[in-house]
Amino acid sequence: MADASWTSSAKSLKGVILDLCGVLYDSGEDGGTPIPGSVEAVKRLKASDLKLRFCTNETQASRDRFVAKLQRMGFDISVCEVFSPAPAAVAVLQDRGLRPHLLVYDGLLPEFDSVDKTNPNCVVIGDAAEQFSYQNLNDAFRVLIGLEKPVLFSLGKGRYYKETDGLNLDVGPYMKALEYACDVEAEVIGKPSAAFFHSVLHDMGLEPHEVLMIGDDLVNDVGGAQRCGMKGLQVRTGKYRPSDEKHPSVTADGTVDDLAQAVDLMLEERGGASLTSCWGRAGGETGDSLTQ
Amino acid sequence: MADASWTSSAKSLKGVILDLCGVLYDSGEDGGTPIPGSVEAVKRLKASDLKLRFCTNETQASRDRFVAKLQRMGFDISVCEVFSPAPAAVAVLQDRGLRPHLLVYDGLLPEFDSVDKTNPNCVVIGDAAEQFSYQNLNDAFRVLIGLEKPVLFSLGKGRYYKETDGLNLDVGPYMKALEYACDVEAEVIGKPSAAFFHSVLHDMGLEPHEVLMIGDDLVNDVGGAQRCGMKGLQVRTGKYRPSDEKHPSVTADGTVDDLAQAVDLMLEERGGASLTSCWGRAGGETGDSLTQ
Repeated sequence: MADASWTSSAKSLKGVILDLCGVLYDSGEDGGTPIPGSVEAVKRLKASDLKLRFCTNETQASRDRFVAKLQRMGFDISVCEVFSPAPAAVAVLQDRGLRPHLLVYDGLLPEFDSVDKTNPNCVVIGDAAEQFSYQNLNDAFRVLIGLEKPVLFSLGKGRYYKETDGLNLDVGPYMKALEYACDVEAEVIGKPSAAFFHSVLHDMGLEPHEVLMIGDDLVNDVGGAQRCGMKGLQVRTGKYRPSDEKHPSVTADGTVDDLAQAVDLMLEERGGASLTSCWGRAGGETGDSLTQ
Repeated sequence: MADASWTSSAKSLKGVILDLCGVLYDSGEDGGTPIPGSVEAVKRLKASDLKLRFCTNETQASRDRFVAKLQRMGFDISVCEVFSPAPAAVAVLQDRGLRPHLLVYDGLLPEFDSVDKTNPNCVVIGDAAEQFSYQNLNDAFRVLIGLEKPVLFSLGKGRYYKETDGLNLDVGPYMKALEYACDVEAEVIGKPSAAFFHSVLHDMGLEPHEVLMIGDDLVNDVGGAQRCGMKGLQVRTGKYRPSDEKHPSVTADGTVDDLAQAVDLMLEERGGASLTSCWGRAGGETGDSLTQ
């Protein structure tokens, strides 16, 4: 069972980390659609005294590109506030002197411009979507199986995500495919890796117990944050499924309809009635649909 | 360590089961090439007093088709001697009243002609090779994730196989991808499933200890057979890799260079010198390269 502590602990929070896809917007062929109320919710968080960062496993586009897309949707967001796996992977590769074979979406390739990719001695896999052809997966497999000690990095390990036309396979299933084919365990870069969350906390200058993670992915957003000592809140948008609320191993600190409701409840608890009235919502109205 | 019992126990054998791809032939774009000596080795087995069956996880073509291909290569083989996963899957589907969504190679579809595929309530995955596009895997995923209790059948669970141009991903990695995406465990039909091996033994009318399985896949051929009580011999052709001989959990009862050598050693042990001389090999010559 979720405990009821997240709203009552909202007063002691000093920062919030937001997932992007499924929390701010739903992705789709047209570039995606903002989730109702989320543009305003981000504005309100920015106007509050809470520190705000964005933490995503987005690997279909370079950070510059997808931040620009979010800005076009109306979000107040800048590149330096966003943590994504590709820049973290580049740092790891350079640190360990590794040369990757890349199985990633074409849009992500610019992130790896600075990396030596000749004579690869590892594989980096991201959400390549329709570029996950048999040929491309097999090429990555052949690189790995040809190495004396295969090294596989996976940019996240999500199972699937929601686009406007339905659920789509994420990078995780393909990571599992290569793990099985080569009898190797991937190193995950991105959520739910503790190293990845800690890099965000370090940038915020905050301790885990001072920060709330809000995401649509129960295991990778909520569970990952909780394992780092943060609180984790799930929204009923994006890839949320009702069965998440009965998950055998991960229980969110709270579940809300959407980001707007999360921000309403949090800022009400911290700031009182004036914020509530400015958004025209009574506390009871939003509280009724809240699962804690 | 392998024990040295397989040749000494050859006298008590009553039957042999042969894998096809990697033992009789190497597959490839041109339909494949017989492995040197294997056509003759099958002939010698057929002329012996040993019962012979073929057991394959081949799922790229219907049984009629790939048996015809083997006949064109010169092999003495008929459909009724060959056990493959698709006919076994059809029996399971009909027994349990299940309607499959098929993610299989086009060439395998005729095997499922008799099966109701409307409004699917399970997924059957085979080695779809280049038809393992993102779209096709995602379609299968959406069927599974939409079921209250996802049911996934996998025709084998091989990691990869060898074609003339190199190693290629088999069905197993894609099975693992769907298992992870939907948090479900696949039911494997084909090697190394004990039910599958037992159906072959039943057809032979023999007990497990009376039968030797010869394959190139250490885990699925050799390990699967051993778990059923048979002896398992690995050939150094097909997908064999030197590291197989140091595998942490599966140790073949013997390892030979190829099927021809296996048959030489076995029939020598059973029949004495005349067979050896007729094949122009001295026991010592072949024995030197045998790992037991």
